Amino acid sequence: MPSIETILSPAFFHLYEEGLEQKNVVVIDILRATTTICVAFANGAKEILPVAKPEEAASMQQMGWIAAAERQGETVDGFDLGNSPQDYTKERVGGQKIALTTTNGTRALQMSSAAKHVWVGSFLNIKTLSDTLRADNSDVLLFCAGWKDKFNLEDTVFAGAVACLLAETFSITDDATLAAMDLYQQAEADLPGYLQKASHVNRFKSLHIESDLDACLKTNTLNVLPEFKNGTIQNCHNA
Amino acid sequence: MPSIETILSPAFFHLYEEGLEQKNVVVIDILRATTTICVAFANGAKEILPVAKPEEAASMQQMGWIAAAERQGETVDGFDLGNSPQDYTKERVGGQKIALTTTNGTRALQMSSAAKHVWVGSFLNIKTLSDTLRADNSDVLLFCAGWKDKFNLEDTVFAGAVACLLAETFSITDDATLAAMDLYQQAEADLPGYLQKASHVNRFKSLHIESDLDACLKTNTLNVLPEFKNGTIQNCHNA
Repeated sequence: MPSIETILSPAFFHLYEEGLEQKNVVVIDILRATTTICVAFANGAKEILPVAKPEEAASMQQMGWIAAAERQGETVDGFDLGNSPQDYTKERVGGQKIALTTTNGTRALQMSSAAKHVWVGSFLNIKTLSDTLRADNSDVLLFCAGWKDKFNLEDTVFAGAVACLLAETFSITDDATLAAMDLYQQAEADLPGYLQKASHVNRFKSLHIESDLDACLKTNTLNVLPEFKNGTIQNCHNA
Repeated sequence: MPSIETILSPAFFHLYEEGLEQKNVVVIDILRATTTICVAFANGAKEILPVAKPEEAASMQQMGWIAAAERQGETVDGFDLGNSPQDYTKERVGGQKIALTTTNGTRALQMSSAAKHVWVGSFLNIKTLSDTLRADNSDVLLFCAGWKDKFNLEDTVFAGAVACLLAETFSITDDATLAAMDLYQQAEADLPGYLQKASHVNRFKSLHIESDLDACLKTNTLNVLPEFKNGTIQNCHNA
């Protein structure tokens, strides 16, 4: 039986690198990078290139790409898009290629690149994601992007949600996953209510982008599975 | 209002070093180093010197110290004591000085040494500890020693227990502490039952030292407060 382990933040990543090429990694940045990536593909984006710096995204604009950049939770001046899933409409992103830089999610994707598969997880595509993990039947690392290397509640709760869905067909013995599952079970009945106390949600309130929270916590609304491969993200799910 | 933050493992410590000299650190290694240190002082030990390597503890034997060493959960051959609180009886440790090396706890103490105070926490002395934290009224870092840099359930649940006791007089906004409190509230009614799933408890079972678990989870039985200062640990609480 393959195993599930949870990497609670990039600060833990080095402890899980052994055998990475045989494992599937799910990169989790619920507020908002991985949610936004799922929405972009659901609305017809062709490709998303995650880049480390806003300048790199800007340089792609000249080649016809949409440039998206967020820092400290806000759209960077002069960019086409930020990191709000609500901005990634069919009109804006349908048929487009997007160069995206975000605070935490981009970095977590790049750290994971040696894995068997690197998939992008969010509440929106949780069923497609977990069905694929089950079918592939390899060890899984649920990799929480966190906030500036620190633990965060929303990514952990999502890791717990995935582990709960897979508990019957995967071995779960590591404490981080067990804790994540317990937190998810506390949160499950009212995810937005539970996450009101999360520090990142309070950061959202101060940025007046609370409506993004609801958009990021809709469960199983999208039948997409973005995969990070050869440095870029494409939708690998044939809906 | 001072704040409480939780460092879920030594892998996170570097994120919390700023301003350390104004903060009180509680080092937490419930199974078993910090529990054992509390028991040793309750049974009359005069001083405990935490050292990194078994050889260093052994070299203190010639000066009349008791040498205690544990690795992978077991007493190292040729040492007077391991890391089981049940071995630290009045007869063995009363009036004695002890040189102690453990897998995770010693390292966490040494990492914290620049703090205002470095106190040793366990369920056994939780009330003395939390009363002192409240009286000192400085920012608190609850530092979980973890297992080889990974997150563990028992240290996190203890951090949550301390935070719950202090929630009225401290500001708690970091996600790690909020998660620890939620896990403690799930565990509270039956701590040994809850922790049956913890990976370290399963390591205990394979080592046939299950009775240590009960010894480590007794709440508020000891009126001691070990403090790590100038490289060594003494009981700073005048009972």
